[in-house]
Amino acid sequence: MQHVESFAKGVWIAPDAGARPIADASTGEVIAKAGRADLDVEGMIAYGREVGGPALRAMDFHDRARMLKALALHLNKNKQRLYDLSFTTGATQADHGFDVDGGIGTLFVFASKGRREMPEGHVLIDGGFEPLGKTGAFGGQHIYTPKLGVALHINAFNFPVWGMLEKIAPALLAGVPSIVKPATATCHVTELCVRIMLDAGVLPDGALQLISGGVGDALDHLGPQDAVTFTGSAKTARMLRGHQGLLDRAVHFTAEQDSLNASILGPDAAPGSPEFDLFIKEIAREMTTKAGQKCTAIRRIMAPEPLLEPLIEGLSARLSRTVVGDPRDEGVRMGPVVSADQREDVLEKAATIAREAECVYEGDVAGDVEKGAFVSPKVFHCADPDAAVAIHETEAFGPVSTIMGYRDLDHAVKLVNRGGGSLVASLVTHDTEVAREVVTGIGAWHGRVYINDRDSMAESTGHGAPMPHLTHGGPGRAGGGEELGGIRAVKHYMQRTAVQGSPTMLTAVTGRWIPGAARTQGDAHPFRVKFNDLAIGRSLRTEARTITLEDVEQFAHFTGDTFYAHTDDAAAERNPFFPGRVAHGYLILSFAAGLFVEPAEGPVLANTGLDNLRFLKPVVPGDSIEVELTVMDRKSRNEEYGEVRWHASVTNQDGEPVAEYELLTMVAK
Amino acid sequence: MQHVESFAKGVWIAPDAGARPIADASTGEVIAKAGRADLDVEGMIAYGREVGGPALRAMDFHDRARMLKALALHLNKNKQRLYDLSFTTGATQADHGFDVDGGIGTLFVFASKGRREMPEGHVLIDGGFEPLGKTGAFGGQHIYTPKLGVALHINAFNFPVWGMLEKIAPALLAGVPSIVKPATATCHVTELCVRIMLDAGVLPDGALQLISGGVGDALDHLGPQDAVTFTGSAKTARMLRGHQGLLDRAVHFTAEQDSLNASILGPDAAPGSPEFDLFIKEIAREMTTKAGQKCTAIRRIMAPEPLLEPLIEGLSARLSRTVVGDPRDEGVRMGPVVSADQREDVLEKAATIAREAECVYEGDVAGDVEKGAFVSPKVFHCADPDAAVAIHETEAFGPVSTIMGYRDLDHAVKLVNRGGGSLVASLVTHDTEVAREVVTGIGAWHGRVYINDRDSMAESTGHGAPMPHLTHGGPGRAGGGEELGGIRAVKHYMQRTAVQGSPTMLTAVTGRWIPGAARTQGDAHPFRVKFNDLAIGRSLRTEARTITLEDVEQFAHFTGDTFYAHTDDAAAERNPFFPGRVAHGYLILSFAAGLFVEPAEGPVLANTGLDNLRFLKPVVPGDSIEVELTVMDRKSRNEEYGEVRWHASVTNQDGEPVAEYELLTMVAK
Repeated sequence: MQHVESFAKGVWIAPDAGARPIADASTGEVIAKAGRADLDVEGMIAYGREVGGPALRAMDFHDRARMLKALALHLNKNKQRLYDLSFTTGATQADHGFDVDGGIGTLFVFASKGRREMPEGHVLIDGGFEPLGKTGAFGGQHIYTPKLGVALHINAFNFPVWGMLEKIAPALLAGVPSIVKPATATCHVTELCVRIMLDAGVLPDGALQLISGGVGDALDHLGPQDAVTFTGSAKTARMLRGHQGLLDRAVHFTAEQDSLNASILGPDAAPGSPEFDLFIKEIAREMTTKAGQKCTAIRRIMAPEPLLEPLIEGLSARLSRTVVGDPRDEGVRMGPVVSADQREDVLEKAATIAREAECVYEGDVAGDVEKGAFVSPKVFHCADPDAAVAIHETEAFGPVSTIMGYRDLDHAVKLVNRGGGSLVASLVTHDTEVAREVVTGIGAWHGRVYINDRDSMAESTGHGAPMPHLTHGGPGRAGGGEELGGIRAVKHYMQRTAVQGSPTMLTAVTGRWIPGAARTQGDAHPFRVKFNDLAIGRSLRTEARTITLEDVEQFAHFTGDTFYAHTDDAAAERNPFFPGRVAHGYLILSFAAGLFVEPAEGPVLANTGLDNLRFLKPVVPGDSIEVELTVMDRKSRNEEYGEVRWHASVTNQDGEPVAEYELLTMVAK
Repeated sequence: MQHVESFAKGVWIAPDAGARPIADASTGEVIAKAGRADLDVEGMIAYGREVGGPALRAMDFHDRARMLKALALHLNKNKQRLYDLSFTTGATQADHGFDVDGGIGTLFVFASKGRREMPEGHVLIDGGFEPLGKTGAFGGQHIYTPKLGVALHINAFNFPVWGMLEKIAPALLAGVPSIVKPATATCHVTELCVRIMLDAGVLPDGALQLISGGVGDALDHLGPQDAVTFTGSAKTARMLRGHQGLLDRAVHFTAEQDSLNASILGPDAAPGSPEFDLFIKEIAREMTTKAGQKCTAIRRIMAPEPLLEPLIEGLSARLSRTVVGDPRDEGVRMGPVVSADQREDVLEKAATIAREAECVYEGDVAGDVEKGAFVSPKVFHCADPDAAVAIHETEAFGPVSTIMGYRDLDHAVKLVNRGGGSLVASLVTHDTEVAREVVTGIGAWHGRVYINDRDSMAESTGHGAPMPHLTHGGPGRAGGGEELGGIRAVKHYMQRTAVQGSPTMLTAVTGRWIPGAARTQGDAHPFRVKFNDLAIGRSLRTEARTITLEDVEQFAHFTGDTFYAHTDDAAAERNPFFPGRVAHGYLILSFAAGLFVEPAEGPVLANTGLDNLRFLKPVVPGDSIEVELTVMDRKSRNEEYGEVRWHASVTNQDGEPVAEYELLTMVAK
């Protein structure tokens, strides 16, 4: 018997006498209990705010990204323990791939994106500088800073590991401490995962706390700097959304609810095409993974009317090979649902669907139906999906799906949108015009649209799998929330602020040099300064170089770029942008480099790239150019070197800018 | 007597017998009446969805941006009519600058940003392509498409023109029809503004409707594709936020509430400094503009304790020059508040503040206090702001502000954050470290932070003025919403969807070529094809060119870029990134142009810029390079030409990519 503990204010707290029993889904045997009535949730919130928050915010984005990576590595080493325990929830080894490996993979992606896409600092910059006056002496810059509260994550039973990790990864990366409240039915797995993470020794005190059992009066103690994220049923989400305390104190609340996700077979995907087979394969997989207990699973299947018969036949044949039983038994491909209660709920919903649709496939169960919560896969066919109501509203949260025919794409779009807002819809087609039409028609009702065909099937990630790179959530019935999506998710735990001021002030606030801000000069050429000594704003103004007609002609001849604007006076004058023959843009770039480069060996190792180049004014023979180079930004890559972003401004003899760009270099430490 | 009408389902509807009277703020005379009990708001919502929405969505982003510009131009021509009527609300000519001109300016900014920052199409792309597999055959792309419902904008009385225009500009640009419900007290001005806009003849039927008077049961008819945006009191916002129908159907709701905005005088800004004078000037202006009836006005003034005395003295002297009276009278600088009710509310709140603070300045009123809703400017001083509660929570929505002293920056940050979430805080300092510390400390509690000093004062836009380029809104007491912020605001009226598929499918959906997607070849060199005939995906593969050691040496000598990696074998070999001497990055770019450029006159007029260049692998003497150039994107600029973005991939003799970038060109039509 596992006594599932809570982790509160730095200590593990055992369940009390009133704890709820947790049964093995396949055997019915009680294997754990969880819950503690007197858990000090108010104290946990205060502890998160006062201990966890300051500790996380003392770290920068890269520190926190490294912390996520360390957690992922440690979990990866210990994942067999999570697999072993997860079998008790009814999950198969393949299901562990989604929950355990999927969760760890999500940590890795946030760790990697945190390093690559976020600054090595405390302020996240959003968009560019917006000048608000004629000279640019005053302007605005949006930034994000971490919220000063806690994030309370309330999770569903179906993904005890992934469900936690996909929520805490962005919160921790933002610098916000997390309190996790898993569904009681599978909280014993979440508890183990938390233990392993704490064991990694990289989480600051107060950064992660766990409530095993009821959430108590936690919502009454949250304020405007806190966030509640919820995954689960629409009913519970509605209750939370209307909670007086959350509304009174404008607490950020986001929900990801189960929805009636659809999958569409394109009109082009006839039997014999790779798409037809792919469609059947994806549907069978979605119906049986986690015994259909996925908020993203396919509940409604839409196919051109003439293809219904072969589709039902093919899907039935494929599903009949799925052995349903105890996931620890050899050959079993689908486990039970999580509990007897859940089975009852699925069967009840299936009965509701049966009032509008005919059951065209029902599989067998190899497991002991007296003890385990086994449900066989069931496929329904609805002959009149326009008149039907329940099939578009009733989610049987198990291996249950309804097939319906459509007449044309417009009809398909209408049926899909009858779901009233979904997490995901998929479309299997090899026709780009079908893809364009369907996405345009259903986009506003969906958080994700998944298109698959013969070209992408080898690398496609599956209809039901939310990827950490992409947003997860949907409008309407799906809850109106949004999670994941890479750094987008991190921003949900931060406050966006528009900061106005002079470029010098905004540079001080953001740590990134903004054109117009003060510069500093030094004795040495900045290419002779090592990474760690290269201050933001450090700059170099070069000598001038006059560009001659011979230079332009030689450049044209040498590079082969004999565009008429560089070689033919009369033709160049006819061009609306040029006063006559002009220097090549690449000549300007190349000569500019000739002006600012320090030839000898030094800390600057290589020019790795260039961004946002704009040619602002033509350079004609006789003009002279000079360059001002300024350190905009630095980002450490490893112990030996880092990337430095330079702002380059090329001006002519009248001080007018002729080109501006940002230059990337690798600089040694 | 103005009979303020509603504009519903394409027709103007007169008020009924139960209409509410609207009085001139300065004279008390009833000048208008508004309200109609049987207004068919349910029908208006349906009309917006079914008539306005499809018409707006048939236009692309640029069409809608041009429509906004036409509205702005027409309003600009007719603004004197708006000025004339606005005097009745108590607004001075200077106040009209904020409301009328500010509103028109907001339309212009959205029109301009719509053209410059949005595509000439129907799908807005968000972020880059995210490959989800090893080869990039499958990946994700986030897009935004317009919501399919209506936006109901519920506005406050203080900005009858700006308040409407700042909300409808992003909604219309997104493609979402708007229903405007102004506060009754000033809805006669909004009605005139709507008439002028309709008169411009550019708004499709159903795109804009107006409710003058009560909103009826509108909220009961909104669904998940609709949005409610609210500006006004926290009390009304709380009522709306908890509305059962909005909660049940997950209707997007956003609020911008009045808040206790603070302004901080930096420790460095002693009397005699330009910052000290600037601070007094900004505060006096914020207190008296719109008679202090601005959600962004400064309610709490924080200064270093030793500077309190000169500050009170200076501010009192400046405020004493403000003549309060009928804004139509010569010399009047501040008008009345909007109504007698409003005056009563302000005085009541001022009395609450007076329990914790001493009144240190009170001005005179030149207007007729028997008839008009005049309130004199009042400055309070609170000696113990730590113990005080009401001064941090009580907003007297008029010319009332409270001064308090702080000991050090930490103390100032604490006091500012006592506001519990504000729209804006300002800081007047010339010290960049003060700016950094304050922004870091208060960012999470603020939607905007305004820093001003001697360098920016000439162009600064004012503490209280929300700029269309920057977000407006704030956490906690300020409502937790967000408006404006350029294209950020447009996204609030659209659904973000993560679309997954092959690059070819994603190109079809987005209209932007994604690397890896199918390309098309043509007989002619693509530089010989006119703008309108240049299809997305049209590409050119060049011949190869071998790069010799002589090329590298000549390039170094010619350009002056004699960096050792190009000129010194031994030193180059010591560089961790290079196998030995390598070609210059700019040599690769220049030779690539030599390979793909078509020398003769043709539709391609100029290379205007370059983005996202990355050097992926060094090129050594003896390597040969070739280029594949593909049309990524097109954007019309005017009737003669447009901008074409090309993807350039430079590969070596082994087919390995050595450089990738995006090239911008102007191409004739």
